[in-house]
Amino acid sequence: MKRINFNGHFLLVFCVVAGILSCNETKEKSQENTNADIIFPKGEKISNNNFTGTAWLKTLVNADSVNQVAVGSVTFEPGARTKWHSHPAGQIILALDGVGYYQEKGQPKKVLRKGDVIKCSPDIPHWHGASVDTAFVQVAITGREKGKTVWLEEVMDNEYQAR
Amino acid sequence: MKRINFNGHFLLVFCVVAGILSCNETKEKSQENTNADIIFPKGEKISNNNFTGTAWLKTLVNADSVNQVAVGSVTFEPGARTKWHSHPAGQIILALDGVGYYQEKGQPKKVLRKGDVIKCSPDIPHWHGASVDTAFVQVAITGREKGKTVWLEEVMDNEYQAR
Repeated sequence: MKRINFNGHFLLVFCVVAGILSCNETKEKSQENTNADIIFPKGEKISNNNFTGTAWLKTLVNADSVNQVAVGSVTFEPGARTKWHSHPAGQIILALDGVGYYQEKGQPKKVLRKGDVIKCSPDIPHWHGASVDTAFVQVAITGREKGKTVWLEEVMDNEYQAR
Repeated sequence: MKRINFNGHFLLVFCVVAGILSCNETKEKSQENTNADIIFPKGEKISNNNFTGTAWLKTLVNADSVNQVAVGSVTFEPGARTKWHSHPAGQIILALDGVGYYQEKGQPKKVLRKGDVIKCSPDIPHWHGASVDTAFVQVAITGREKGKTVWLEEVMDNEYQAR
């Protein structure tokens, strides 16, 4: 009787230990994959006042006199967004991860997800940022040949939250 | 005796079933993450003769008269590469996944991995592609304001394989 009880307990303990090990393995894999999803480093926290909330910029390519296209990866924490602004030579946005918002003046707000692409025409006031509860990672491709970004007013909470 | 044996067997069967279910869960998660890594669709198989091997193009943004920057995602299968070529307005390459090669004429070949960025000056002959045994996914950002890509000769196996 004792011996068989031991076998039963042994199997139960084995089961629990195997379950825990299996759980840990799944967690580790999930962690690895989360890290693997990041393509560019987050870069530096943006400290100028052209943004609401917390956003990070990794400059990938600086414009120069020969190739005047600038490329940067921006990570917006949930709720973070740019002010309204426009680009004299337009802008292209590639959505890499998370859930973001994009809106041109007078148009409804668009929801952006991984793989979405926006081509914003020159001088069109617009804003972009993360959704309310999910961060957003984008690459911005901006021509500098016609001058600097024109920064406008803040995106109010009611504009940001509008559907 | 019989009753206790049944408990032992029951636990063993439970253990095996739990193990199989746990394994399946891990596989499903892994599958989900693999799909989640793909940012842009592979697009169409490239059928022109400017490439060696098999490569795929997803056009993300066409150049137009106002914003003359074209953006495309290219997936090179292992061994695939462009011919030597140059761009009159230069090119920017963002490495998104896999392992790739990039070489400018007269320079050593560079190995590119996720997150690497190349800024290629105008009129510099170069080629890019996948490594020998790993596919490569890149975004190419190409100014079209000074004309079309100039295609040159094929990248020979000894150039491609050189270290």
